[in-house]
Amino acid sequence: MARPLHVHLLPELVDPAKLAGGLVVVIDVLRATTTITCALAAGAARVIPCLEVDEARRVAAGLPPEETILGGERQGLKIEGFHLGNSPREYTPESVGGKTLVFSTTNGTKAMQHCRQAERVLLGSFLNFLAVGREISASRQSVHLLCAGTGGEITREDAALAGSLVYLLHYAAPAELQLNDEAAITLEVGRALMAEALASQNQTLAVNNVRHVLANSQGGRNLAELGLAADIDDASQIDLLDVVPQLELKPWSIHR
Amino acid sequence: MARPLHVHLLPELVDPAKLAGGLVVVIDVLRATTTITCALAAGAARVIPCLEVDEARRVAAGLPPEETILGGERQGLKIEGFHLGNSPREYTPESVGGKTLVFSTTNGTKAMQHCRQAERVLLGSFLNFLAVGREISASRQSVHLLCAGTGGEITREDAALAGSLVYLLHYAAPAELQLNDEAAITLEVGRALMAEALASQNQTLAVNNVRHVLANSQGGRNLAELGLAADIDDASQIDLLDVVPQLELKPWSIHR
Repeated sequence: MARPLHVHLLPELVDPAKLAGGLVVVIDVLRATTTITCALAAGAARVIPCLEVDEARRVAAGLPPEETILGGERQGLKIEGFHLGNSPREYTPESVGGKTLVFSTTNGTKAMQHCRQAERVLLGSFLNFLAVGREISASRQSVHLLCAGTGGEITREDAALAGSLVYLLHYAAPAELQLNDEAAITLEVGRALMAEALASQNQTLAVNNVRHVLANSQGGRNLAELGLAADIDDASQIDLLDVVPQLELKPWSIHR
Repeated sequence: MARPLHVHLLPELVDPAKLAGGLVVVIDVLRATTTITCALAAGAARVIPCLEVDEARRVAAGLPPEETILGGERQGLKIEGFHLGNSPREYTPESVGGKTLVFSTTNGTKAMQHCRQAERVLLGSFLNFLAVGREISASRQSVHLLCAGTGGEITREDAALAGSLVYLLHYAAPAELQLNDEAAITLEVGRALMAEALASQNQTLAVNNVRHVLANSQGGRNLAELGLAADIDDASQIDLLDVVPQLELKPWSIHR
C-alpha cells in the first residue's frame, strides 16, 4: 500500500482534520522557516512562534529578559522595539545562542497553527532540504508538505521546495508514494530544479537553480525592493544545515 | 511593458475585480470546457451554462422543446431526465446540431460566473489548445488562465492545460510576458508535457503525454471508476478543433 505524499499549496486548501495523525512539513521559504532553522542552528534554545505582534511582546515580557530575543517582521521589515528582523543572517550564536526566540511572522505562524491535529510537525527550508528528506524517509506516517504562501496567495518559492522534496522522495522510491494532484504539479517544478543537479551530484547547479527561482518569485522581488536581496542568497543554500526544527504543541514552541 | 499572463489554480484564489478588463480563459478539462467545445464544434447554436439542476430545467422549459437539449452531470453521471451527460462523444451533429444546449455542471459554471467583470471570456481545453493560444497572441489585454478545479481542490489536468498554454506563449515571446507565481509553477508542468513534442513537432507524443497526465489525475481516476475512461482519451486530443467558445454575459450564453 503506497504511502500518501500530499502537497498543499496553501493552508486554506486542506482541512486541518485531514492532517490528523500525519507528518507535516511546514514550508515558508521566504523567510520564516528558513530563519527559524538558522536560529536553531545558531544555538537558540527554542523558538516561540506568535501570530500577533502584541502577543509576541506579552510572551517575551513573561520571560527573563537576558534569555529572551524578540524577532520577526511586518511587511518584510523589523518590528518596532524588536531585537531582530526576519533575515537569516541576523541569527548568529552571538545574537541568539542559548536564548528563547519569540518570533512573529504572519504566514508561517498561520501555517503552523493549521497543524494542531498532526502527529508530528517539522519545518522545512532549502537549508535543511536533505535532512528533512531523511526524516520523511525514516517515518511511516502520511506526509503533508504544507506551503505557507503569502496572504492567501500561492508562492513559487514554497512550491519549489515542496516540489524538490517530492522529486527527491519520488526519485528514490516512486512506487511507494501516492501523490495528490498538487504533489504531481509541484513534482515538475522540483524536477526542473533538481533533476540535472542530483543526477550529476552538482550542488552548485542546484543552488544556482534555486537562487534563480527565489529571485524571480514575487516574494523575492519584494525582498530585493526592500534592500534585502542578501536574504535570497542565504535562503538558496542547499543542505547547509543538518537541523530539522520540530514544532511542539504543548508548550507551543519549536526545538531542534 | 510586459503583458500580465496570470494563472489562477482555483477561482477562489483570485478576486473577481482583478479580472476586470482582462481576457480570461476558463479551464475545466475534465470535462465541462472540453464537452462544451465539442458541442459547439458539432453545431450547437449556443450553450447556456447553469449552476443548479433546477435552474437548468427552468431555462429549458422556457425554450422550444424541439430546439433544446438538456445536458450535464452530477457526481460524474447524467442527471435524471436530462438528454445527455458530460461525455464529449455524446455531443454530435445528430444530438445537438442547431440546438440550444442547456448545460449544468458545478465547477465549470462557478468558474464562468467568477468572470463577470472580465472584458472577454473564452473556454479552453486540449481540443482547442492552439486555437486558444492564437486568440491570446492576437489580443492585447491582460491574460488570466482560470482553472475550475473540483470542489475547491486544485486539479492536475487544469494545471496541465494552463501550464501548456503558458509554455506555448512563453516559448514564442518570453520577454513580452509577466508571469505571476502560479504561472511560473504551471510553466514547468507545461514544459514537461510539451517541450519535446513542440520542438520535434511530434503531435502523438504530446497527446500521449496529456493522456498520461489526465489518466493519473484524481479526476481521471474517478472517471475510470465510473466506466468513463473513454472521456480521458477524448479530452487528451490536442488541436482536434479550431473552435474557441466565448462566454457572453448578456444574455448569459456561450457561442463559437
